This record gives sequence, structure tokens and C-alpha cells, in this order.
Amino acid sequence: MQAPELAVSRWFNTPSPITLADLRGRVVLLHAFQMLCPGCVAHGTPQAQRAHALFHHAGLSVIGLHTVFEHHAAMTPVSLEAFIHEYRLTFPIGVDQASADGPIPLTMARYEMRGTPTAILIGRDGRVRHHGFGQEDDMALGAVIGTLLAEPATS
Amino acid sequence: MQAPELAVSRWFNTPSPITLADLRGRVVLLHAFQMLCPGCVAHGTPQAQRAHALFHHAGLSVIGLHTVFEHHAAMTPVSLEAFIHEYRLTFPIGVDQASADGPIPLTMARYEMRGTPTAILIGRDGRVRHHGFGQEDDMALGAVIGTLLAEPATS
Amino acid sequence: MQAPELAVSRWFNTPSPITLADLRGRVVLLHAFQMLCPGCVAHGTPQAQRAHALFHHAGLSVIGLHTVFEHHAAMTPVSLEAFIHEYRLTFPIGVDQASADGPIPLTMARYEMRGTPTAILIGRDGRVRHHGFGQEDDMALGAVIGTLLAEPATS
Amino acid sequence: MQAPELAVSRWFNTPSPITLADLRGRVVLLHAFQMLCPGCVAHGTPQAQRAHALFHHAGLSVIGLHTVFEHHAAMTPVSLEAFIHEYRLTFPIGVDQASADGPIPLTMARYEMRGTPTAILIGRDGRVRHHGFGQEDDMALGAVIGTLLAEPATS
Repeated sequence: MQAPELAVSRWFNTPSPITLADLRGRVVLLHAFQMLCPGCVAHGTPQAQRAHALFHHAGLSVIGLHTVFEHHAAMTPVSLEAFIHEYRLTFPIGVDQASADGPIPLTMARYEMRGTPTAILIGRDGRVRHHGFGQEDDMALGAVIGTLLAEPATS
Repeated sequence: MQAPELAVSRWFNTPSPITLADLRGRVVLLHAFQMLCPGCVAHGTPQAQRAHALFHHAGLSVIGLHTVFEHHAAMTPVSLEAFIHEYRLTFPIGVDQASADGPIPLTMARYEMRGTPTAILIGRDGRVRHHGFGQEDDMALGAVIGTLLAEPATS
Repeated sequence: MQAPELAVSRWFNTPSPITLADLRGRVVLLHAFQMLCPGCVAHGTPQAQRAHALFHHAGLSVIGLHTVFEHHAAMTPVSLEAFIHEYRLTFPIGVDQASADGPIPLTMARYEMRGTPTAILIGRDGRVRHHGFGQEDDMALGAVIGTLLAEPATS
Repeated sequence: MQAPELAVSRWFNTPSPITLADLRGRVVLLHAFQMLCPGCVAHGTPQAQRAHALFHHAGLSVIGLHTVFEHHAAMTPVSLEAFIHEYRLTFPIGVDQASADGPIPLTMARYEMRGTPTAILIGRDGRVRHHGFGQEDDMALGAVIGTLLAEPATS
């Protein structure tokens, strides 16, 4: 599946908005999370930060996506900004754009995510190559990243 | 030191407000935290929940105190309520009353806390017997709790 | 139950043999383990070492007991000595005396232990106050230690 | 560097001896350990077991190598056999052949290992592609494994 474009209402940790189109040729790890999701805070988000530290220079772009689908009033951008500061997150993080039609934000719906955390890996060719919900094993995720980084950039 | 009374603007997980005066005769663990403090979320708050589960019936009252002294707009009661729900916290939690004079809330100032998490143990006689800042060792904290529970209730 | 005396064929980490009779007036944590028991190596033995570090000066004597009841040829005193060195254990450790009648060594049989690790706490009065098989919670064990240390030494 | 052949005096968990020559075309993770090395028992050996479980069917052969270079009398094959049983290790494990000239066994010397644990990855072409001493990060190791598995088998 070709990876759908992101719909982001606000960005943190980046001087300008990011699109997947801009990242074509790199491998992308999309880390969908909510700041009050215990499994995200304990596992998913630190794992995304580690992937950023280990593989950014090898060609991986880690993008956080704050996909709020519950407790909307509790997880506003003001709260997210303090969360990012306190947890020392350094990869770019976008707020998934709210939907007019319901609690599920737009990017979360496009990717048919089932909840948080969700880890999505997009190859250099812009196609979705891994779509995992819940706690991911570090070694297994590393292997997929290594495989995708080993692929030649397509022209 | 006689334990100063709590100043709480709102309670969660209790049908009615709690005072230390009401708890005289029980041992009290006061767990001061902020919902966006990583050391609280990873260590202090789960430790308080474990202490509640282990020792509530033996005479320990665990009281959470949300002592917000930074990022006030990010850690409102609305956000705290969702945090309590998502982390499945079941012990009573009070919002430390904001001060008119600065960022440090009233109870935090009365106890001269240096930050979060802070664990304070109050004996059956209402006196402060332990005052710890940062990550507390489970076994060491358990030993203080055991010692205080073993003391006779004073008349 | 009055704690039965130890039957030890060889001691490590002590200049002279230790008896429970000598320790009367102190609290004793008897940590029964086998060097090839995964639950001992991962949890029980490090916990005993922590208890020794935290409470030795407060009146707790931690005694390791190598209760080999299986793989006898694999866990000889020569192997145990290297294990103690590599794991940097500093509390006294005795080899439970082999039985002429079967695989269960003498002290293990006297205490009716069911396996390893087993944690036994003996009060200042020489009586067994706690008898736990398997992984013990740090906070719960700490509470029992604190309670027993708070008791007056009996004359 | 072309991976030197193994020198093994005894095998466990395999019906017949294994040579690297036989494994040409597969990726090989050589996990060098000692059964009384705390860092091996806590990290390296469980990591090797996880790699075996995750990637064996994808083309990875995990080979344990008991490279005893100290406490030789404490870590005999009899003790190793009980260790393998108690820790439920299922990948093939060879005892590195003792040297007539000193404490370092033959394979350990050939690979110029500095201690245990050591993780060595050999590509499908039989060349050493990763040589790591000490605790390896799961995600980083997974990435190397993924990269090597993605390479075509050479003829």
C-alpha cells in the first residue's frame, strides 16, 4: 500500500512542516501515540526515540504523530508541548488533524490504525512495509528497519 | 515534625475530602507527583499504587498529591482526571491548592518539598517520619512502612 | 516455630562458621538458592544482596544457603566459589550439608523448603516469622524486615 | 575478514557437529559466553535465545560458544549441561576447545575476542560483518541481522 500523506495541524521539533513526499528516498518510522497512553509512555515512545538516535544518520526519519482519539480535552497541544519537553523528545512530532465527523483524527483514519501505540514503517519507495499495533519487540523492529535501510533508493 | 494539614482544591477517588486529622491512628504515605514528571510516572506513582495494594488493609493510607509547580496550563484537573483513569490509579488523589504568591502550591510549600516525586511517611501519631525526594528503593520504603505499622496507635 | 539450626558443610565469606544460636538477638534472612536456578540468579540472590547492603547495620544478618537438590555434580563448591566471586556476593554463604538418604540436603529438609529461591525470616527471638517460596516482592519483604527489626531483642 | 572455522570439543542441542562451512549461505550469530559471566546470563544469552526464536526460520543460525577463559574447574561441560537445561536454551552450543598453551580456548583466540559476552555476525558469504563485546542493544543488533538476511546468498 502506498503510504497516505500526513494531515497535521501543528508541528513540534521541526522548523517547517514535514510531508511524506519530502521524505521519499528515506525510510520513515511513523510512531502514533497519545501522551496519556501508558503503553506509549513506557514502551513505544522511548523506542521511537532510540530508533531516532540509532538510525537517523543511516537514513531513517522518525516522525511522531499525536493521534488523540479519546480524552481530547486532556491532551491538547499545550499539554503535549510540556510532555515533549519533560520527556526530552527530539524527533519531529505532529498533531494529527482532528476530524469534523468524529473522535478519530484524519491520519489515524487514513492508515486504519486500531489504537496507540502504532508503529508504521514506510520504505524508500513510499510504501507501507510494516504496520504494528501495541508493544513491538526491539530486535524484530530493528530487523525490519535494517532490511528497509538496505534497499536501494528508487528513482 | 508534626505533619502539616493538606490544602487540596479538588479530590479524585474519594467520596469526600480527606484530612490528615481524620487519618490519625493510621500510617499515611503522601505521594507528591506531577502527571508529566517522567520519574513519577515510571517509578513513584506505580510504587504508591503497589503500597496501596499491599498495605491498605494493614493500616496504611496512601494519598496522592498533585503538586503542580511548573507547566501549570499543561497539567489541569481535566488532564489529571484522564491520567488517573488511564493509569488505573485507585488511591485517593488531591490537587494541591494553588498559591496566590507563586508557582509552588500550598501543601508543597508547607512540607518544604524540593520537587517530584516526593514520598512522605507520617506515623500513627501524626508526625513526619520519612521525607524522600526522587526514586525510592522499594525494599527500603517497605521497611519504613513496616516499622511504622508496627507501632501502637497512640491515644 | 523455633528456627532449626543450620547444617553447613562449608562456608564462604566468613572467617568462621556461623550458627543461628550465635545470631540470637539479630534478625536473620536465610536466602536458600542454587547457583543454576534462574529465578535465584535473576531475583532472589540480588534481593538478598540488597537486603544485606540496606539493613546489615540495622541488625539484619543475611545468610545464603546453597541448597543443592538437583544437578549435584554441576553445582559443586568449586563452581559455587566462582559464582560468588563473579556475582560479587559479600554476605556469608554456607553449603547446605548433603544427606546420606537422598537428594535433599539437611537444612532444606529441616525447614521443609519446597524449592529455590526460598526466603526465611527469623525474628530476634529465634522464631521463623516468614517462609516464602519463589519471587518475593521487594516492598513486602522490606515491610516484614522493618517489622522484625522494630521488635525489642528478647532477653 | 573471512570467519575462521570453529574448534569445538563437545556439542549440545545438535544431533551432529556443526561447522561454519556447513552453514555457508545462512547468516550466523556466534554468541560467545561463559555460564558464570553475569552479563552473559542477564543479557547476552537471553538475547541470543530471542534472536534464535525470531529469525531461525528467516535464515539465521544462532550458535552458542562456551569460551571458558577463567575459572576452568568451575565451568566444566557437566555444569554447562545443567545450565543449558535450567535456562531452557534450545540453540546449538559448542564448548570452545581448550588450548594447550594457555587459558584462552582456540576459537576465542582465532576471533581475537576480548571477553564475554561477544556477539559475532557472519554474512551469507562467510565473512565477519559485526564483532561486538559486552551488552548489545537489541534494536541495533536486529538492524544488522535484518541487513544481512536481506543480502542474496552468494554462489
